[in-house]
Amino acid sequence: MVTRTVDLRSDTVTKPTETMRAAMATADVDDDVLCHDPTALRLETEMARITGKEAALFVPSGTMGNLICVLVHCDIRGSEVVLGNNSHIHIYENGGISTIGGVHPRTVKNNEDGTMDIDLIEAAIRDPRGALVYPITRLICLENTHANSGGKCLSVEYTDQVGELAKKHGLKLHIDGARIFNASVALGIPVHRLLQAADSASICLSKGLGAPVGSVIVGSNSFIAKAKILRKTLGGGMRQVGILCAAAIVAVQENVGKLEGDHKNAKVLAEGLNKIKGIKVDAASVETNIFYFDIEESSKHTAESLSKYLQQRGILVMLEGPSRVRIVLHHQISESDVQYTLSCFQQALTGVPDQNGI
Amino acid sequence: MVTRTVDLRSDTVTKPTETMRAAMATADVDDDVLCHDPTALRLETEMARITGKEAALFVPSGTMGNLICVLVHCDIRGSEVVLGNNSHIHIYENGGISTIGGVHPRTVKNNEDGTMDIDLIEAAIRDPRGALVYPITRLICLENTHANSGGKCLSVEYTDQVGELAKKHGLKLHIDGARIFNASVALGIPVHRLLQAADSASICLSKGLGAPVGSVIVGSNSFIAKAKILRKTLGGGMRQVGILCAAAIVAVQENVGKLEGDHKNAKVLAEGLNKIKGIKVDAASVETNIFYFDIEESSKHTAESLSKYLQQRGILVMLEGPSRVRIVLHHQISESDVQYTLSCFQQALTGVPDQNGI
Amino acid sequence: MVTRTVDLRSDTVTKPTETMRAAMATADVDDDVLCHDPTALRLETEMARITGKEAALFVPSGTMGNLICVLVHCDIRGSEVVLGNNSHIHIYENGGISTIGGVHPRTVKNNEDGTMDIDLIEAAIRDPRGALVYPITRLICLENTHANSGGKCLSVEYTDQVGELAKKHGLKLHIDGARIFNASVALGIPVHRLLQAADSASICLSKGLGAPVGSVIVGSNSFIAKAKILRKTLGGGMRQVGILCAAAIVAVQENVGKLEGDHKNAKVLAEGLNKIKGIKVDAASVETNIFYFDIEESSKHTAESLSKYLQQRGILVMLEGPSRVRIVLHHQISESDVQYTLSCFQQALTGVPDQNGI
Amino acid sequence: MVTRTVDLRSDTVTKPTETMRAAMATADVDDDVLCHDPTALRLETEMARITGKEAALFVPSGTMGNLICVLVHCDIRGSEVVLGNNSHIHIYENGGISTIGGVHPRTVKNNEDGTMDIDLIEAAIRDPRGALVYPITRLICLENTHANSGGKCLSVEYTDQVGELAKKHGLKLHIDGARIFNASVALGIPVHRLLQAADSASICLSKGLGAPVGSVIVGSNSFIAKAKILRKTLGGGMRQVGILCAAAIVAVQENVGKLEGDHKNAKVLAEGLNKIKGIKVDAASVETNIFYFDIEESSKHTAESLSKYLQQRGILVMLEGPSRVRIVLHHQISESDVQYTLSCFQQALTGVPDQNGI
Repeated sequence: MVTRTVDLRSDTVTKPTETMRAAMATADVDDDVLCHDPTALRLETEMARITGKEAALFVPSGTMGNLICVLVHCDIRGSEVVLGNNSHIHIYENGGISTIGGVHPRTVKNNEDGTMDIDLIEAAIRDPRGALVYPITRLICLENTHANSGGKCLSVEYTDQVGELAKKHGLKLHIDGARIFNASVALGIPVHRLLQAADSASICLSKGLGAPVGSVIVGSNSFIAKAKILRKTLGGGMRQVGILCAAAIVAVQENVGKLEGDHKNAKVLAEGLNKIKGIKVDAASVETNIFYFDIEESSKHTAESLSKYLQQRGILVMLEGPSRVRIVLHHQISESDVQYTLSCFQQALTGVPDQNGI
Repeated sequence: MVTRTVDLRSDTVTKPTETMRAAMATADVDDDVLCHDPTALRLETEMARITGKEAALFVPSGTMGNLICVLVHCDIRGSEVVLGNNSHIHIYENGGISTIGGVHPRTVKNNEDGTMDIDLIEAAIRDPRGALVYPITRLICLENTHANSGGKCLSVEYTDQVGELAKKHGLKLHIDGARIFNASVALGIPVHRLLQAADSASICLSKGLGAPVGSVIVGSNSFIAKAKILRKTLGGGMRQVGILCAAAIVAVQENVGKLEGDHKNAKVLAEGLNKIKGIKVDAASVETNIFYFDIEESSKHTAESLSKYLQQRGILVMLEGPSRVRIVLHHQISESDVQYTLSCFQQALTGVPDQNGI
Repeated sequence: MVTRTVDLRSDTVTKPTETMRAAMATADVDDDVLCHDPTALRLETEMARITGKEAALFVPSGTMGNLICVLVHCDIRGSEVVLGNNSHIHIYENGGISTIGGVHPRTVKNNEDGTMDIDLIEAAIRDPRGALVYPITRLICLENTHANSGGKCLSVEYTDQVGELAKKHGLKLHIDGARIFNASVALGIPVHRLLQAADSASICLSKGLGAPVGSVIVGSNSFIAKAKILRKTLGGGMRQVGILCAAAIVAVQENVGKLEGDHKNAKVLAEGLNKIKGIKVDAASVETNIFYFDIEESSKHTAESLSKYLQQRGILVMLEGPSRVRIVLHHQISESDVQYTLSCFQQALTGVPDQNGI
Repeated sequence: MVTRTVDLRSDTVTKPTETMRAAMATADVDDDVLCHDPTALRLETEMARITGKEAALFVPSGTMGNLICVLVHCDIRGSEVVLGNNSHIHIYENGGISTIGGVHPRTVKNNEDGTMDIDLIEAAIRDPRGALVYPITRLICLENTHANSGGKCLSVEYTDQVGELAKKHGLKLHIDGARIFNASVALGIPVHRLLQAADSASICLSKGLGAPVGSVIVGSNSFIAKAKILRKTLGGGMRQVGILCAAAIVAVQENVGKLEGDHKNAKVLAEGLNKIKGIKVDAASVETNIFYFDIEESSKHTAESLSKYLQQRGILVMLEGPSRVRIVLHHQISESDVQYTLSCFQQALTGVPDQNGI
């Protein structure tokens, strides 16, 4: 009988806390399409402040946040965006920027740390003199932290350099900051500084911060005015949305402080797993709350069989390939959950019961 | 000093009730993107049952609901949809079916009762033999109740006839049923019967039913499977969305029964306004909770000045033109609010204080 | 045995003349994508002069011409065009402005003379204050002559009025001038005057003018610069295109003068047909080279059987419905062809051989 | 005074030969939109035969040919194409597959020989089980010869392997065969065999074959039927197009035999250039009619100054970067032109007049 659930699939799986539920139950709301929901306004004002941008807009998901940002910057037919070949926008958002937005993506190789080489980015920018045969580059996208590289942080210096490059070529810079608070905590740099070079950013409230639903996008007043129209077009304009924003305000207030713990737990778990025969994980490279591990061929488990084994013990993980697994920590995973997880892995791969006899 | 607010701009302005707030505060939730939020599942199952369709999907807004439905039916490049020239999709949804979805609209004149003549619909369907120069008609859209005609109901007979026509030509039928519950109550016909001929429908939960956020779309299992992917693409996939669905379940349970009162209030208000010098409203044609009235040229007010006058007394209305105003009733407008509204109008237009001395 | 062909399906069916073939055989050409084909340059310079615009661009077809013009004016996502519900762009161009270009069309009823009421056009223009839910109107399209109304001419006065309206609302005006030379000849007004109010126009060279292939679009220098890029994107950039342009130059030089004869032949044919029992045509309304006629129910022929009868005698016509036929005159239809056609119709419908015994 | 022109910018710059001009002057033509131009039919029949496909379609350009093929295979919203990061479609066709067609491209690194590693292609194909977040892969594109790699040929074996991979995953294979005849001649393999694994191909008639305008696309009957509709939508439907097709028929008949000479000339020129101090070209890798060379930093010339120097002597080349130049041979470059070119380069880079005293 499973007595606990340790959901390590993603940091999107957190349940709203009691404080959030209380905030939702008493939220002051209004029709956010016809006028401005007061709680949405509070959240947006606060997020603009934190990010150092003029304005913010609540959207139902990070995918919509990125989609709107890319499409607003690329509002003219024939636009191209330069982005990482391993970026979330390119890999996990249904190709929506093209299939819905008609924007042509040009990818640059993501390094293991989530960066793209500056000179490769520059080489990917189209020479406007070739406009007869080229699309027109209008935007560069970065992702901080970079999910597919295992939650690596982009430094201020790197981001600023890309910002300089964008300016030099008259381009905009968008940062997919779904987990920018994780980067901020890990680097010890305020969010607004990490986003200083960006013309826009999308920030997820329902990942590490634990809000039930939503993201915000931030940018200049004129950018957000256009974004608001596109949000309506896409169907992201919601009515008494203050309900959700109330929880998000709590998330920002209460949960940023918990991210450091998540990072520590990730490190402990990665180091622990690495000691288990049959599992390979670069624990030293764990910077935030995400890491990937590989199951060695000699192991008695594939990713799939291991996943099933763990599931019977209440532990959920995300398969990324036949021998690759993703682990994501969040505020509803305790130190004890980490120890329990390690013991289950130990048992799964070595067959030796752990000290608790499980 | 304004002591009350009577918001007649739309039925989207309602505030969540205590029951809804309680339901949200205790809702059982999960990550609806990674798996299936249990409360979302409950709502979707219930809506499928009510509408007599195989499956349902919660979406953040009616605009997204319609957009998804049109785009799923018209998933092949080169598609055309036949719809009313005065329909919500054509007029109020940013042209998203074209600008986001690349679907070509062909409009047919909406009659005053929200119908389109069957022979005009048929004439608008492209002859597939002309495919070299024609787009391919794939879909017909109806709207029930029809907002811009003043909330008129489409009869079962009419809807069935259009359904027959669609079948005859191998087309799909989508019903924008944002206010289908109003039609159901006004006609005394169950929702599933009104939607029987439809391949899909979108139904708003945050209009007359009073849920804070959201719509559902309904259709066959395979239709909803495609819709779910497109919802993700558009950014409408939300995480612990059960929060919102919990309120929506309450809305469906508690508020359908209140629609009859809204319709009665609309009638009373329309008849009362019609007696006021300077206002013209066809009270006999009020079928549900929406109506429009015109301000006569001889009146001392324009729509704008009247609106401002009323606003100072807590009454909010929606301008539709220099001399046209829209009124929408909902469950948070009481009989007393209606009387108060009438007296303010009376005073505004005749300058004679009403019996209450206001 | 058929000894002659009288092809009345369209004015696109003409064969290149000897002069055109000679011009093509000796045309000075170059790669019009890498640099500028000298003969294309000559044609474009001449067409810019004739139309009174800064620049011109040769395109492979009228459909591409209109598509490019609409898309250049509506280059920002979320654009809407106001155009006739019976216009060529809306009916016969595959809905390409939406399905390829993502532009939302809003149609206004075309009157029998091809115009749209000015106040209806104005009513169709979206109020920019409603941008949250409206697409943004950017363009009005006219068609001169208007094909589906039977080749009716739009007057200078009307066109100028629509131009004023466009300016007032900050919109562009595009004229689908596929047969603008026919309008010019029929009205006795130079082409540049008819297009004076237009920001762009597309003009077909392979209809009445008889060039084998192509149209030109005209507009400002900056407009044509954008159009050239879009032409390349669509695949309309051609290499030694001077071959085709050489024929087009001859067409403009030699065949404009023949249009008056086409119009006269159309009138004679329409009047003659009207005298034949079973055929109904409003001969008085024939203004240029196109007309439609209806076959009365009492007739022994349907459109289809009549068409087959005629085809056996070398006469080709275009069916427009079960009892409706389109006739188009062009410079390769002689007065004698008209008389021959009339006698065949006479025989077909009355069964009495005509005076020539055919 | 320049007495000759040696245009090495591209093989698109050839002028129509006398035979072509004669063929155009006498071509039997008809309206290819209303029915089927007889000469277009002849060309299309012949190209279908040569390529071993059921049907062919003449289009105004290679760009339109590729655009149509990609869009027909990816006719459902949400499609992705896997193609080379250095392919013509991705780099030089304005991103039209996305900006016009809404298709999401996923690129795989092109090797120096124009191939992509089979396992990298396979890794780029999306797992259909991830459709909730992935676009759906529908197509793989190859390019033979591969322009940006310097006209390298893809072998039959490689192409067949990619074809197998496509079949295994239920995908289509399109080959951009703009210069497939060059590959055929260089490899000594018939065109139909090189295209055997392909579901479609586009083949340029106005590159090495020297026709003034146009490409053909080939595929199954049902594919070409869809392609014809899309050609019309894009504006590529042309009227008496037999004029152009007549020249193309001559091109196919007369000029395929000349390609071997072009390849030989390319080799001679590359080897000659490589001997000139300051120029670096991998002459051994020249397989067909295209190569790139680099100007060494120590040279007295940049690409730009060299290009200007040569231009004054009638030699035109294409700059590809500050120190990179592209050279393309074609049937209007003679052995003597090659020697003249070499002597001018010699003079430009060493300042020593060549043996002819130039």
